[in-house]
Amino acid sequence: MKSEWDIINKIRQLTGERSQDGKIAGIGDDCAAYEIGKGRYGLFSADINIEGVHFDLSYTSLFEAGYRSMSANISDIFASGGKPILTLVSLGIDSSLTEENIEALYKGIKSCCDKYNVFIAGGDISKSEKLVISIAIYGEANQYISRENAQVGDYIYLTGNTGLSKLGLELLQKGEYISDYPSAVKKHLQPEPQGTLIDIILQNFSPTAMIDISDGMLSDLGHICKESKKGFVIEGGKIPHHSEIYKFCNGEKNKMLDYSLTSGEEYELIFTSKIFNDSFNNITCIGRIIESGFFLEIDNSLREIKLTGYDHFSKK
Amino acid sequence: MKSEWDIINKIRQLTGERSQDGKIAGIGDDCAAYEIGKGRYGLFSADINIEGVHFDLSYTSLFEAGYRSMSANISDIFASGGKPILTLVSLGIDSSLTEENIEALYKGIKSCCDKYNVFIAGGDISKSEKLVISIAIYGEANQYISRENAQVGDYIYLTGNTGLSKLGLELLQKGEYISDYPSAVKKHLQPEPQGTLIDIILQNFSPTAMIDISDGMLSDLGHICKESKKGFVIEGGKIPHHSEIYKFCNGEKNKMLDYSLTSGEEYELIFTSKIFNDSFNNITCIGRIIESGFFLEIDNSLREIKLTGYDHFSKK
Repeated sequence: MKSEWDIINKIRQLTGERSQDGKIAGIGDDCAAYEIGKGRYGLFSADINIEGVHFDLSYTSLFEAGYRSMSANISDIFASGGKPILTLVSLGIDSSLTEENIEALYKGIKSCCDKYNVFIAGGDISKSEKLVISIAIYGEANQYISRENAQVGDYIYLTGNTGLSKLGLELLQKGEYISDYPSAVKKHLQPEPQGTLIDIILQNFSPTAMIDISDGMLSDLGHICKESKKGFVIEGGKIPHHSEIYKFCNGEKNKMLDYSLTSGEEYELIFTSKIFNDSFNNITCIGRIIESGFFLEIDNSLREIKLTGYDHFSKK
Repeated sequence: MKSEWDIINKIRQLTGERSQDGKIAGIGDDCAAYEIGKGRYGLFSADINIEGVHFDLSYTSLFEAGYRSMSANISDIFASGGKPILTLVSLGIDSSLTEENIEALYKGIKSCCDKYNVFIAGGDISKSEKLVISIAIYGEANQYISRENAQVGDYIYLTGNTGLSKLGLELLQKGEYISDYPSAVKKHLQPEPQGTLIDIILQNFSPTAMIDISDGMLSDLGHICKESKKGFVIEGGKIPHHSEIYKFCNGEKNKMLDYSLTSGEEYELIFTSKIFNDSFNNITCIGRIIESGFFLEIDNSLREIKLTGYDHFSKK
């Protein structure tokens, strides 16, 4: 079978990107957007998470599996500039799970929903050999932010920092040094969507394009550039690193950059803006949008880079 | 593990049936309803369909698996008195499926969407050992119809007829007489939601409660009665039977009733109304709502009946 992107492109061709009446913008963004009223948009997104593909129950608790699945969905609404409102949760459950197991899973889902004020409005449940957590979410925005409007010269901003989720995953998979890197492990098992920063971003930056980091910083910034038909330059020296990344990499610049640029499932936001503002904690300007090409500037030299991201289909 | 209903009740306790601000009515109906504007409701529903539980690929084509999964979701919107607008489709796909296989599946989904004017606005895709089709749907209504407002004395109406889906499934499972019962086989493999009757129902009957038949006529009417805290009497002689049910059962009354009362995945509608009207084809009055108890009247005698429905968890 072809890659996930090939399949999505094929589906995109079959489906079309916009409804015939023009009222619905669909596949190709974090959320689909539908004009529910004058200047008011309903935002829709869905994710499917399958045991053994998206999470490994040998080191992920059922609470965490539920929590992180919901985080990813809520993050899609923030990445489109909206507020999440309600969610539908469909579960495929192995008959060996006890009532306590199912309750733990559900409490993880609900705990994340409660934190970001999302109501669980329904869903479905089925028997399944592997645990399946399939979530659809609805939010609203007065103006939704897509991936396709980044302009040449726009500043590129990143919330927080990236790298921890990849490090956490590696440590969990090896079962090593877990207690030495609590932030990395926590970020992988129980990532948070950017609910505390989204209002600051919308009010102070008027983003031209935005995406959340699920595949990796380079890959996701690449999605913005592909949809906007632009390129980027990232300044390596501006990329913030968490102290646990510094510690694990012994401060080696290239190693730290590798974590930060490729770590997926971070749910930090990258956005572009015409406004320069470096006065907010946890919002860092890391580069600019250019006409074309993807470049990383390190020690005053420009390297052209290849975009890579995590493709669930490419790993057997 | 407990039954599907036990799990859903547990989740219902955890979640609550209505959001704190009262704006969202959630679990316990075909759709969740959210007031998106004055007198305007967004309707939300989700279903998860898993290979080997909801469909068997030994006699169901991928086109049909896609079509019937979407039918079930569109039916939920009609059952709440709404018009479907957009859908999110999440697929779990076995890596052995070819591009043509995935296209066939997707064409089944899209063919049903096109017929009922639903836009595929997004979704997700993942690797999976078993095929998973997880669908969320959004529709709108000026007034949504729940299951909980049936009143004593209301007439009970059924669209079309029931029984064919169960007969079709049995023939397909045995691989017998398939060409002799084309309507039964078609109704099982490619059922249709009631898109042509819903406007007639809304305009002429002002339904007090409505549900679509996914578990079986008795079971689903039972859901209305449970949520409305009422009972029902069905007149056995009024229940319409398709000619293929008559033929297969050799006109034996009890056998025909058994098919009609218990056949699931029909996607016919049952609704209650204060209005008596027998002038529409394919809308039949089959009984009345009473204070309590569930009764079937046959040959002038009343039998008290036990409600049964299909529980995916109870079958191993």
